[in-house]
This record gives sequence, structure tokens and C-alpha cells, in this order.
Amino acid sequence: MDERLQRAAEAVRSCGADWGAFTNFDSVVYLANHIAPIEAGQSPFAGGPTAAFVNCDGVCGLVAPNVEAAAAAGSWADTKIIYEAFGFERPIDLVASYAAAVERLTSRLGIAGVFAVEAESFTSELAEALKPKRVVPVREALKRVRATKTDEEKQLLRRSARAAAVGQETFYRAARPGRSELDVFAEIRAAIENFAGERTPITGDFLSGKVRTAASAGWPIGRRLEPGDPLMSDLAPRVGGYWGDSCSSSVLGEPSAGYLKLFKAAEDALRHALDIIRPGLIAADLDAEVRGVVAKAGFAYPHHTGHSIGASVHEWPRITPYEKARLESGMFVMIEPGAYDPSAGGVRLEWMIEIIPGGCRPAAPFEFRTNIFDLGANATPSGRGV
Amino acid sequence: MDERLQRAAEAVRSCGADWGAFTNFDSVVYLANHIAPIEAGQSPFAGGPTAAFVNCDGVCGLVAPNVEAAAAAGSWADTKIIYEAFGFERPIDLVASYAAAVERLTSRLGIAGVFAVEAESFTSELAEALKPKRVVPVREALKRVRATKTDEEKQLLRRSARAAAVGQETFYRAARPGRSELDVFAEIRAAIENFAGERTPITGDFLSGKVRTAASAGWPIGRRLEPGDPLMSDLAPRVGGYWGDSCSSSVLGEPSAGYLKLFKAAEDALRHALDIIRPGLIAADLDAEVRGVVAKAGFAYPHHTGHSIGASVHEWPRITPYEKARLESGMFVMIEPGAYDPSAGGVRLEWMIEIIPGGCRPAAPFEFRTNIFDLGANATPSGRGV
Repeated sequence: MDERLQRAAEAVRSCGADWGAFTNFDSVVYLANHIAPIEAGQSPFAGGPTAAFVNCDGVCGLVAPNVEAAAAAGSWADTKIIYEAFGFERPIDLVASYAAAVERLTSRLGIAGVFAVEAESFTSELAEALKPKRVVPVREALKRVRATKTDEEKQLLRRSARAAAVGQETFYRAARPGRSELDVFAEIRAAIENFAGERTPITGDFLSGKVRTAASAGWPIGRRLEPGDPLMSDLAPRVGGYWGDSCSSSVLGEPSAGYLKLFKAAEDALRHALDIIRPGLIAADLDAEVRGVVAKAGFAYPHHTGHSIGASVHEWPRITPYEKARLESGMFVMIEPGAYDPSAGGVRLEWMIEIIPGGCRPAAPFEFRTNIFDLGANATPSGRGV
Repeated sequence: MDERLQRAAEAVRSCGADWGAFTNFDSVVYLANHIAPIEAGQSPFAGGPTAAFVNCDGVCGLVAPNVEAAAAAGSWADTKIIYEAFGFERPIDLVASYAAAVERLTSRLGIAGVFAVEAESFTSELAEALKPKRVVPVREALKRVRATKTDEEKQLLRRSARAAAVGQETFYRAARPGRSELDVFAEIRAAIENFAGERTPITGDFLSGKVRTAASAGWPIGRRLEPGDPLMSDLAPRVGGYWGDSCSSSVLGEPSAGYLKLFKAAEDALRHALDIIRPGLIAADLDAEVRGVVAKAGFAYPHHTGHSIGASVHEWPRITPYEKARLESGMFVMIEPGAYDPSAGGVRLEWMIEIIPGGCRPAAPFEFRTNIFDLGANATPSGRGV
């Protein structure tokens, strides 16, 4: 049995439930290895949320529509009910088809009793089909068992980290005056997808110019890159169901003195994080330390210092001023200090960091560069790394 | 009041409900013009489904997380409650934050009584917050009011059709031996996104080689295009909340006699559809006619003949053997006959078609080409159109 399934069973047990009914797509990836496509939104051919059921002994069942049959084939669930959803020869009542599938699974595995559920996606329809004795929330328990990664997850996350690094290396090559943000982003995506061998959902930010980078967040638009633009490339690709994340910032040409100050603040803060991250450190203390380096340079960032990552792009514990959890060996955390100044632009630098006994190491470090395009005669990209 | 909102109110009324609670992302686009990003999946910072509420008079309320604030700004809902979901200064109980937002909206608009709901995404949590006197399903009523498009939707759909056509024209230019399916798809996406000026979710199929095209469906992978490959490019981009769709098929080099037969069957079938589509035609009869042209050529396609399109990529009525609905002026339907033969590959040709009084017209026709790359000395693309 995969250790993730064991841990999910442990979460269900710790809630005092007989069964867990998991309906968030990332939970279903985590405990059932059912990696459904997400990038076109909820399918018009779904009668309810794809659901994975787990009991305290790790018995696992899955209900998924036939449009997710390929994903279901990769799932390790003991019992899988694939319901008719997309077809053309006769009309399908999707909601009834879904409910019938849940009831078939329920009777086959003896699913009953107290249910641990994910309230944000647990439907009334599921409640009717399951007739729970009682429901209890599973979010807190699940987030805790997911915080440290299993050996399989570490492999997956290192690969996702490499995918993000491939994206950043492509960013340095692809950014040129005259191209739109969307052009550069498409080239980055192609490199990541060729690395992954599959379509890859990507979230994050891609920004050019002082105004946009100083505002810190946003998806790419048609704006064309201009000489001297600060750029920000925050890339979070999902490869094999696991997310990578990363952020580079650079200038298309010669950076201003003001920009170099922002860059140094973010770079020093990230380097300081690498120096101090170790098991036992309290997340809020890490946040204060990293934020402090940026503050000492005269800047601030209006966002978290970082977050854990796995089958969700943001996981617990987050690196925030309020988070009292201690870091542990086996966690993967993003550290992403930034410095923003509308007169110079914005800089954010982010690596995936694996916490190991006694310290930490970047999962797939890539180079940071203050500038990526030489506007003079010498067209060789130049810059410097952390 | 936008006509879509009026129609949604009419659907709620026809169900005998006091209020509709809409929780599918495409319904929320339709009736509230809240166009949230979908391409990274459900946000880890959501306490429940983004929901739009409508009463019989067209009063409209929206509950959305702060990560969707930009989308909510574009919504015409009378009252919008944006709940705290993503932040870093203090912990947020997402589920409680969502429930409080729903309760605030409920008391502000007097939302109560019998609710028309979308069972596939209506959560237990919502039911607890709304305390409905009774719930009734709204799917059937909603699909009917959405079937013919309003003038605003026609504009949006014509633009999405053009986005798909831009993608197909790029496909013809970008497909070359040695490039991976993912490379070509990335270039197509860049063209569509530059046209749209924004990131664009795309679904559909992108396939190369006899085996993959004959199997008719699948997303692009790392396979490199080879001379002589049949290719299939089914592109469905979502622009401004509305989907376009389209399919081209072509050969990278000289098509075989067998391939040309497939191509002619699909082309004749689509041309026949254009000849006969008019208000009053029964969808099943259209399906039989189009399928018949392909059958007469000795082939078949194991899928629907087409489907309606709008804020969902597949809408009612679908063009299938079982659908007894009559076509009406103002509908937008996809027609996509195919012909598949493992020894030659697969061909599917698809246009968006607008139904008008007395007939129909393609919304944004693009050229179909039997071949798109001249393997001889003359590198000019050649081919012929429908």
C-alpha cells in the first residue's frame, strides 16, 4: 500500500470517522493517484465531484466519470466505478449516473458510518447517497499527514522542481524586446511540456514593466517587452499531479541602481533562508527572519514568505507571520522573498527547498540573473547567481 | 438587465423555485458574468464553490473568494460578497469564511424559500447556510433557456470562433517534421492567446501519426512529427468566458489515396450539414444525415455529430442519434463528422455554425487542407478547401 494512502487512512482515523470521502482534486491525487486533467475546468460531463473513499484500514474506492478513465487506470484504488457520463448513443442522466455509481461502490465496499469530508466540495447529492451517520471535517487532519513528503512524493517533487527550472532557463532565453508576455510564456510552456511529455497546467505570474512587476502578481497579457523592462517570471507547473514552483526576476537590458537594490534585498533574504532552514525552526520565525532581511534593506513584500507544496500548489504549513508549526525533515517549502518599488519595479526570487536532517537544500536550483539581455553590441546574456 | 440574467430568472421560475443557487463555473459565467480563471483547477484557497444566486425577478448576488476579485469586478451581480480566502497576516478558516459570506448575502438579499440547484456541485455546506424549504434541480430548465444565444453571446461566440480559426491557421504554419506535438500546440496556443490578449484555456485534441489520429481523441504529447504523418488539430479555446471549437485534419506531406477517401467523406458530410441545417430540423435527423454521408463512403465515426456551444464547451442540444430537439435560429452548433481507418489515419473536420432564419452560416470558417507541408523542392503549402 502506498504510504500516502496509509497516511490518509490515519487522518480519517484521527477524526474519529469510519470512512473519508475526498472530493478535492488534489486530495484525490494524493491518496488515490487519480490524476485527472484540470486545465479546462469542471467537465460538462460530470454528475458530481470525482470522489475517493478511504477507510481506517486503507481500503480505497474511486468514483470517476468515463471522461477520466485514463486517469483512473493509473489509480491504485482497490475498487473503481467508472460511470457513464460522455456518450452519444442514448441520453444520460448525469446526476443519476453518478449517484448510482456511488451507491454501487458503497454497497460493494460496505461504505457507511461516520464520514470525514471536505466541506468545500462535499455535495448534498453525495450526502444523500452515503447517508452518513455523521460528518466531520477532515481538512486539518489531512493537511498534517501531508506536510512531510513520502519517498515517492520526494521524487515527484524533485521532477516538478526541475520542470520549473527548465521553465526559468527558457525564460532567460526567450525574453526579447518586441515579444509579448504571452509569446514568452508560450515558449516557456513548450519547454516545460516537452520536459514533462504532457500538457502541463501552470499557475503563477508573468509580468513586464515597472508598473506590473511592482504590483507583484498577474498572468501574462499581450504587453510587448521593451528594452529596460523589469520582468518577473513566477512559474508553478503541475507535472504528474505534483506542483513545482519558482520565481525569477530580471531586467531586459541594464538594471538601474534602484533595481539592483531590490534584487540584492530579495537575494540576500533567500540566501539567509537557505542558511537557517532546518527541522525544528518555527515557520513564523523563518518568516520574520526573511522579512527582516528585506526590511533592513528598506523594502517590504505584501505577501507570505513562502508555502509548502505537493499535490496542491499551496500546502500547510505556510511561511507566514502567524504560523506556529515547526519545520520538519521531509517537507518541501517554497521561499519567495520580494522587494517592490514602483519607481524601479519588482523583484521576487523563489526556489523549492527540501528540508533534510540538520538543514536544507534547494530541490532544483536555477540561476538568478540581474539582467538577461545585453542591449549593447555583445549579445551574450550576462548576470550573476545567488 | 442582461438578457442572460433574465433567462436564468425564467429558468428558476419555471422550476417553481424562489431562488436559483448556481455553482457550476459555466453557469456563473452565463448569468453573472463572473469569469474566473479555471486552468489551474480548484483553488486551494476556496471555502466552497463560487456561487451566483438569482431570484425570479432577476435580482442577482455573487459569493466569490478574494482570489477571484478581478473576475468579480466584471460581474453585473447586484450584490457581491468577496470573502477572505488568500491572505498572510492571520489564519483564515476558509469554510467558515465562505459560510459567513453566504449568510451575509442571504440576509442582505432575503434569499430563502425553494431553491433551484445544480446537484453536481451544490454542497452540503451551502444547504446548511441556505436552509432551503426544498431544492429542485435546475439543469433541464437552464439548458433550455441557454440553447439560443443572446445578441451579446453571439458577439462573444463569433470572437471565440475567430480565436479557433487563428489557431487552425497557425497549425498549418507550425506543423513541421521534427517538432513535437507539444511544440506545435504551444505555437498554436501563443497565437490564440495573443489574439485574445489573455491566457486561454484550450481543450480538444492534438494528434499525429496513423495510430493516434485513427483513435480520434487525445491531448498532445512529446511525439515528434514525421514526414507523411496524418495530423488532427481539434482546438476549443475559451475566450472571455465563451468557448470556440474547431477541427482540422491534414497530412504532413503527400496524402495517400486511403487518406484522401477519409478526407472526402468528412468534407462531404460537413458540406451536406451546411446545406441542410435550418431552424426546425430535428437534431437526430441532422445526425442521421451527416452520419449517412460518411457511411455511404464506407466509414463511420464513433462519436456525436456535434454539439451546441456557449459558456460551456458542450451544451444542449447535442447532435446525436437520440436528440429529438429542433434546431432554432440563434443556436450555435459544432458539426464534426469524422472518418477513421487505422491503415490510413483519422480525419475530422469541424466548424462552428450559426443558425439563422431559414438556414445557417459558418461563424468563422477557416480553410481545410489535405496537406500542409510540401516534402518536395517547392516548400509552398498546398491543399484545397471545403
